[in-house]
Amino acid sequence: MRILFIGDIIGRPGRDVVAAELPRLKDLLKPDFVVANGENAAGGFGVTRAIADDLFGAGVDCLTTGNHWADQREILTFIDDEDRILRPRNYPAGVPGKGAGFYETRSGQHVLVVNLMGRVFMDALDDPFAAAEHELGACPLGEAADAIIIDMHAEATSEKMAMGHFCDGRASAVIGTHSHIPTADAQVLPGGTAYLTDAGGCCDYDSVIGMDKYEPVQRFIRKMHGSRFTPAMGPATLCGAFVETNEKGLATRIDMIRVGGRLQQALPEL
Amino acid sequence: MRILFIGDIIGRPGRDVVAAELPRLKDLLKPDFVVANGENAAGGFGVTRAIADDLFGAGVDCLTTGNHWADQREILTFIDDEDRILRPRNYPAGVPGKGAGFYETRSGQHVLVVNLMGRVFMDALDDPFAAAEHELGACPLGEAADAIIIDMHAEATSEKMAMGHFCDGRASAVIGTHSHIPTADAQVLPGGTAYLTDAGGCCDYDSVIGMDKYEPVQRFIRKMHGSRFTPAMGPATLCGAFVETNEKGLATRIDMIRVGGRLQQALPEL
Amino acid sequence: MRILFIGDIIGRPGRDVVAAELPRLKDLLKPDFVVANGENAAGGFGVTRAIADDLFGAGVDCLTTGNHWADQREILTFIDDEDRILRPRNYPAGVPGKGAGFYETRSGQHVLVVNLMGRVFMDALDDPFAAAEHELGACPLGEAADAIIIDMHAEATSEKMAMGHFCDGRASAVIGTHSHIPTADAQVLPGGTAYLTDAGGCCDYDSVIGMDKYEPVQRFIRKMHGSRFTPAMGPATLCGAFVETNEKGLATRIDMIRVGGRLQQALPEL
Amino acid sequence: MRILFIGDIIGRPGRDVVAAELPRLKDLLKPDFVVANGENAAGGFGVTRAIADDLFGAGVDCLTTGNHWADQREILTFIDDEDRILRPRNYPAGVPGKGAGFYETRSGQHVLVVNLMGRVFMDALDDPFAAAEHELGACPLGEAADAIIIDMHAEATSEKMAMGHFCDGRASAVIGTHSHIPTADAQVLPGGTAYLTDAGGCCDYDSVIGMDKYEPVQRFIRKMHGSRFTPAMGPATLCGAFVETNEKGLATRIDMIRVGGRLQQALPEL
Ligand SMILES: [Fe+2]
Ligand SMILES: [Fe+2]
Ligand SMILES: [Fe+2]
Ligand SMILES: [Fe+2]
Ligand SMILES: [Fe+2]
Ligand SMILES: [Fe+2]
Ligand SMILES: [Fe+2]
Ligand SMILES: [Fe+2]
Repeated sequence: MRILFIGDIIGRPGRDVVAAELPRLKDLLKPDFVVANGENAAGGFGVTRAIADDLFGAGVDCLTTGNHWADQREILTFIDDEDRILRPRNYPAGVPGKGAGFYETRSGQHVLVVNLMGRVFMDALDDPFAAAEHELGACPLGEAADAIIIDMHAEATSEKMAMGHFCDGRASAVIGTHSHIPTADAQVLPGGTAYLTDAGGCCDYDSVIGMDKYEPVQRFIRKMHGSRFTPAMGPATLCGAFVETNEKGLATRIDMIRVGGRLQQALPEL
Repeated sequence: MRILFIGDIIGRPGRDVVAAELPRLKDLLKPDFVVANGENAAGGFGVTRAIADDLFGAGVDCLTTGNHWADQREILTFIDDEDRILRPRNYPAGVPGKGAGFYETRSGQHVLVVNLMGRVFMDALDDPFAAAEHELGACPLGEAADAIIIDMHAEATSEKMAMGHFCDGRASAVIGTHSHIPTADAQVLPGGTAYLTDAGGCCDYDSVIGMDKYEPVQRFIRKMHGSRFTPAMGPATLCGAFVETNEKGLATRIDMIRVGGRLQQALPEL
Repeated sequence: MRILFIGDIIGRPGRDVVAAELPRLKDLLKPDFVVANGENAAGGFGVTRAIADDLFGAGVDCLTTGNHWADQREILTFIDDEDRILRPRNYPAGVPGKGAGFYETRSGQHVLVVNLMGRVFMDALDDPFAAAEHELGACPLGEAADAIIIDMHAEATSEKMAMGHFCDGRASAVIGTHSHIPTADAQVLPGGTAYLTDAGGCCDYDSVIGMDKYEPVQRFIRKMHGSRFTPAMGPATLCGAFVETNEKGLATRIDMIRVGGRLQQALPEL
Repeated sequence: MRILFIGDIIGRPGRDVVAAELPRLKDLLKPDFVVANGENAAGGFGVTRAIADDLFGAGVDCLTTGNHWADQREILTFIDDEDRILRPRNYPAGVPGKGAGFYETRSGQHVLVVNLMGRVFMDALDDPFAAAEHELGACPLGEAADAIIIDMHAEATSEKMAMGHFCDGRASAVIGTHSHIPTADAQVLPGGTAYLTDAGGCCDYDSVIGMDKYEPVQRFIRKMHGSRFTPAMGPATLCGAFVETNEKGLATRIDMIRVGGRLQQALPEL
């Protein structure tokens, strides 16, 4: 099975690069399933109905999110009816939305996507490790699911890497999001789980993690707020990863993807 | 001018991969100057006299550090007499050691290295932006220095990237350390400064950021300390970056380097 | 019912003031039940078997703890057999010890003590609000328990006060610990729960929160570790609170207690 | 010399209790100088020109602030022309406003007020200890100033207490603000500096640190934002401290003050 994972899509430049490049990537990589993190798709903060529909139309099968999932309040009106959008699973009970989705691909294979959020240097949600344990126990890889993809939305590299090992052999891929910078540590862990600390943002990299650089730099210098953060508007790089799995659902490869914009380009050689 | 920058060297596996690979990298890349971050060289925590000497012997010209700089207390006995070892410059006045060094290469060129530490999600040192401003003002690139290399030891991708832009056009390179995971966002910023969010650790990547994975995973699961952290002892990947500068001291290229171990290998094509 | 609550006992001076003053307080206040926080009783870090026994011998009925509960590793050998010592209830499942205890007073009344830990500016344990909800639901005040006492061990005043309101009308008292400084905001909340943001430490207040002041001040100034923290050894103040409840288990009064040492003395007028 | 220090005034209830009680306190205590923290005076966030003028009219001589100093952007239009309003001194150079003020009382005595902000669990400003050192060195107590009052606006009890000892013998008083909860640890430190960890908020204490309790409690439970924070609108308690100094500027006493509202009342006995 072939899985394409796309990191945090940030504002219009992020959406534009996905719209422009995803068709080509689908031609090239022929993924059975496409996951993208949409928490910053709407002006850098959250996601709207219209933007989610555009991304689904462009070929995304499942949108994960993170700490910004509810920045656009309209999501509260549709998230409970929209199975293709996840918010981190380890929010407290009773919060709208859900943190795991079970999907069928065109060829009839079953994919479980779990969206988790880390707690180091972030708000203290429920335990993401306990949440992963629960999901992986309820839906064993190679039995109930042909592939299991975990979006580990977290700040600390240590927590992300610990989650990778925690799920190793039980998930197809653990891929981090949230830092908005792609990491270069793609590997298949010893137990067979594909791992990448961060997929990277889909954004203009002449920026501060996707945002127009002036205001963030000023805040660091002056410790005062000036204007709001807005996405940097130059050409964006689509960042992500490509994972291939075997009949047991374990990964046989993981490759980094960087297409467009300022960053050095990377594509899997098939 | 050619600069080789090596990320956090973690324990024996990190030192071993540097000892094994640095000679080959020097043959291949012919760097005029080699900087390496040594804060985790001694069993994962700090650096000793003997280890520093080994690293200098292997071809490192300057050792930067970070929050772990004084974990081995013996450093306090020699750091004031050792110009080749830096600790973050933005420690309070009166702390032993220094945060910037001015070096002459074999060919007679002058290199300023500045070691800074971020404050987001880290201990609150003095302002790293003010420290950078001071150093860059006192030693203008292309005038007093042929190259200026900044090791921005920090947790948050935003703070590192903001420092890149803050120094853009005034430093040859701003390269991050501390996350122990290489990022894939190497670029020359618009003003001519080479930038990479994190050089990555020199360590075994079947680990939690270089440390044996058992104890860190257990701490995330149980929220209790068991044993101490020790470096993971499998084969390490040397991670870093290669920068080339022009006669003004600005960067003409930056390339990621990953040699040895589990990660996908990367070397500049010259 | 009369309840005496004693804040974090810190090192020998803290134990000494409890040993010296608790008998007098028991004579004066005739408490039916005495809770004390013992997380710093052993040299400032954790609690040992011998120290716990001394405190029980001095008249403490239940020892709560907090983030330092396991600093003395020997506690792991006896906490599962010792019903009178609690650790925060919201540690992950499987951690030794328990977070709530159900006790019978000499006069046959039943007291539930729940030890919670906050998450703001602290390690991310499980949700303390969900834990409180579970305990209060399982053991309703005035039915299953004659009194319910919650030790909310937390850093942020906001989280403590929110817990007070969350439990208001369902617990006899929500009293904070951990800051080692007594607050002066004792009140009975509108629903009948006695509330105090922090009981304060039992320690020498010529100190930095109970610790010898030299090293903490140096760390703030130099951002380097020197020696270990050790308790300040001057005469300590016993800090705590006195709560009286009615037949429904709700509070009719709460008074601050400060006895001995440097702080202005306070005792309830009965 | 007699000094009255009033903690964070929060919204209309805070302003109302100051307006109602300050005249009586001035009659009773006859302070030579009145300091109040105004960072939350305008609806809980910042301070406006009109509100500052009302507070000065009510008898406040100097308004200190904290992390919320610039929440009302209009302050940027007048803070540089208004010597009676301070913002934390340890903001970076170039930020509007100033962090220390030198004032003359009606009887011709000179008072230095220094506003500092802590860094533990707060944004990383410049070093407050270095800032204190600078001010205390430039304006020695008993020589250049008859009294020196330090508002240490900080979260951590440890950092506040360390600042107390750091200034002990060199300032008349170090009084904390920001937690919005009065502490009960008023004492004259060994060197003669009056110390109180937190003056407490001037607010309705049927609240979460002065704010209407519904929304903060919901955020703790659900980890989602609902509405904005607004001040709790019940009767407020004025919280603060009274300090008396000798001819050297050192403190001879410090007393806690709590007047009005739900908290147990406290007034110095003169
Ligand atoms: Fe994001
Ligand atoms: Fe995020
Ligand atoms: Fe490191
Ligand atoms: Fe580090
Ligand atoms: Fe404690
Ligand atoms: Fe504690
Ligand atoms: Fe405040
Ligand atoms: Fe504040």
